[in-house]
Amino acid sequence: MKAIILFGHGARDARWREPFDRLADLWKAQYPNTPVELAFLEMMAPSLEEAVGSLASKGAAQISVVSVFFGQGGHLCNDFPVLLQACQAKYPQIALSATTAVGEDLAVLQAIVDFAARAL
Amino acid sequence: MKAIILFGHGARDARWREPFDRLADLWKAQYPNTPVELAFLEMMAPSLEEAVGSLASKGAAQISVVSVFFGQGGHLCNDFPVLLQACQAKYPQIALSATTAVGEDLAVLQAIVDFAARAL
Repeated sequence: MKAIILFGHGARDARWREPFDRLADLWKAQYPNTPVELAFLEMMAPSLEEAVGSLASKGAAQISVVSVFFGQGGHLCNDFPVLLQACQAKYPQIALSATTAVGEDLAVLQAIVDFAARAL
Repeated sequence: MKAIILFGHGARDARWREPFDRLADLWKAQYPNTPVELAFLEMMAPSLEEAVGSLASKGAAQISVVSVFFGQGGHLCNDFPVLLQACQAKYPQIALSATTAVGEDLAVLQAIVDFAARAL
């Protein structure tokens, strides 16, 4: 079974999490057969390892980790590969893969441009 | 003249900025008559005040500040209104307005879901 993790930065303020919950809800409505978990780098739970563990317990064999970040700075280039490697070592039976940051995707950027244009 | 500012968090790593530069380039290609500036909350230049000043010097009378953040946590709910008010006080001749975070927009979230689905 395939599954995805939507991986975000995390923040102190619980309101920050709302778009991530909406993302997961959209995913569940559109891809009900592909389990999704949120995971956060810091300040929010669950961690990436906890999310992988949760999906492993549901029988996931392949997990794609989608980095819900705009840019690929130190967190994604340095911290994230270490985290992902640790998860892979802990769950060797799972094929873990990772995408680029969503902010690298032209369609995501175009949606932001469209949003900005509507705000004018 | 109307103008927009794409306002992001900023990061230590210069690579983080790339999607913001691409966003500004997309905007310039599609809305060449509406000047755009990037601005950052911290760790990157220009600041919001510097970006407003730059657009003011180009003759902007109305500026829409688009928060390129996923969530509305402490930065957007607490820090940003203070910054915006300070800019408005410094440039009283400009009508400054602000959008919600782009992560509140359903079309942006859907583009992220579509990206995640392609990654499966």
